[in-house]
Amino acid sequence: MSTETPPPHAYVDADARIALIGAGTIGLSFAALHLPFLASPSQLTVYDTRHDLAQYVASTLPKYLPAASPQTTGRGDYDLSSIRLTTSLPDAVRDADIVQEQGPENLPFKAAIWAEVAKHAKNPNVLFWSSTSGITATAQAESGGLGDDQAARLVVVHPFNPPHVMPLLEVVPGARTSDETVRRTVAFWHARGREPVVQHKEVPGFVANRLAYALLREAVHLVREGVVSAKELDRIVQASMGPRWAVAGPFHSYHAGGGPGGLEAFFKNIGGTIQRCWDDSGKENVGEGWEDDIFRQAEEAYGVVDTSRRDRLTRGVLEAARK
Amino acid sequence: MSTETPPPHAYVDADARIALIGAGTIGLSFAALHLPFLASPSQLTVYDTRHDLAQYVASTLPKYLPAASPQTTGRGDYDLSSIRLTTSLPDAVRDADIVQEQGPENLPFKAAIWAEVAKHAKNPNVLFWSSTSGITATAQAESGGLGDDQAARLVVVHPFNPPHVMPLLEVVPGARTSDETVRRTVAFWHARGREPVVQHKEVPGFVANRLAYALLREAVHLVREGVVSAKELDRIVQASMGPRWAVAGPFHSYHAGGGPGGLEAFFKNIGGTIQRCWDDSGKENVGEGWEDDIFRQAEEAYGVVDTSRRDRLTRGVLEAARK
Repeated sequence: MSTETPPPHAYVDADARIALIGAGTIGLSFAALHLPFLASPSQLTVYDTRHDLAQYVASTLPKYLPAASPQTTGRGDYDLSSIRLTTSLPDAVRDADIVQEQGPENLPFKAAIWAEVAKHAKNPNVLFWSSTSGITATAQAESGGLGDDQAARLVVVHPFNPPHVMPLLEVVPGARTSDETVRRTVAFWHARGREPVVQHKEVPGFVANRLAYALLREAVHLVREGVVSAKELDRIVQASMGPRWAVAGPFHSYHAGGGPGGLEAFFKNIGGTIQRCWDDSGKENVGEGWEDDIFRQAEEAYGVVDTSRRDRLTRGVLEAARK
Repeated sequence: MSTETPPPHAYVDADARIALIGAGTIGLSFAALHLPFLASPSQLTVYDTRHDLAQYVASTLPKYLPAASPQTTGRGDYDLSSIRLTTSLPDAVRDADIVQEQGPENLPFKAAIWAEVAKHAKNPNVLFWSSTSGITATAQAESGGLGDDQAARLVVVHPFNPPHVMPLLEVVPGARTSDETVRRTVAFWHARGREPVVQHKEVPGFVANRLAYALLREAVHLVREGVVSAKELDRIVQASMGPRWAVAGPFHSYHAGGGPGGLEAFFKNIGGTIQRCWDDSGKENVGEGWEDDIFRQAEEAYGVVDTSRRDRLTRGVLEAARK
């Protein structure tokens, strides 16, 4: 090919203009994550239809900022008044290099948003990211009536809350998402010091939540059976799997647990026990009536949680796991 | 009652004489955990039938020692030659205050050990602890033919490996275990700076492993389905649930995720998604043929794991989670 192709990562860098669609908790957490990396806060546009948008952003965003990005030295001085705020979607996306959507979790909303975004975004290299926790890029592109060129730019970038603290971004391409979109998205998040992981198939709930919910189901079962209380169960996890998995994931841990024989030796030793636990595992479903007792236990144990301490400790844990 | 009862914690303190039954990895990890707390290494007895016991302990134990106990200032100077080593069980337990068993995981072995221990332990306040990962205290006491007084002293104290690093001890009483035994056991581990959690029912696999294996089953499923590789899945956990759960367990986290409405609000928002993930979750069983590919992936990703780095990082994580 004689056409010159831009060098890798040329599209998306410190000068990327980012339009955040939706100024809820996730939107402003992403805003806090992006700010220290931008050449100027004016590179960031926040779109939301709420009438008190300016006041809301000014009062909420600073809460996320102090340690917005442990991976960067940070600018420290954020002129928040330079952030572009708008209640007009065409205005928000017209000059954007990245449009990052975190609106309501329903397909008609997402479809309508992308149809409108696709009409007004003028940058031929624009990327479309959806923060959805479960509506596939394939379904969003389809329902939004996106053409192939637009669908190629759309990819799910699912954070683990809150994104200004947690490193994980699940990058989940749809049927028509281009490899180039995936590559640029991954490169972008690596440059932000985060942990993007590409998923090779679209499955309900993606990977992180499916894993967490599988454990949650067994947790519900054990509390329901009276083996431990909700708070005791939390203490167990905090004193075992939590810190272990902060350093080495489950396969890595069990592979180590097998000694020189690795995961195979581990299953040879413990496979029978694992199967007995699986056979006996919880089959609880949502809405079966176990909820009230567990909701009450959580309320009594934790009340209204101040997440700022949790987030501060989590940042320390992430740093310690990396040393 | 006119009989004087000893003050709480009077039985078990820094002067406790501990007999470890079995000098495998768990036994020596516990040895490393106990050493800094003992008035003298001679308070520790290690029993094992292996012929090279002295040489084996001398070469293996120091590997666990440098950071054996992050919760204590430590003595630094361990005269390992003062540890009592014996290949005679009666000799090991005769004067012990605590007999801690970590032998092979089969009931006939444990039954035989406790029958023998009960015959020779002379301290009327002795505690019997089993490190088993799955054989209940009820079954051990029954099969060992222990009388009520002896069965009252026997309780499962299940560590999360390696115990010289991980804080969790699952304390699981059997049908005849006395409340006093449970109280003294919990007090002992609190004094060691660890996290003992009492379980109110004996269930297969206890709590920590059941939770971890539930997540492992879904992990196996997602890798088998080609959604992510084993290594990608580990990265996902390390960048999300791991660090989060090091700080706040699953109920605490989801209760926070619901905002002021707590866990109830969380389930109101996300319950449908959770149920869809549960409905679609993995039903893999051990021995179905998925193993070889995953064993190979783990081997290629991690080879032979040097756990010393992992353990050093884990100690850092535990410290950061507590600050």
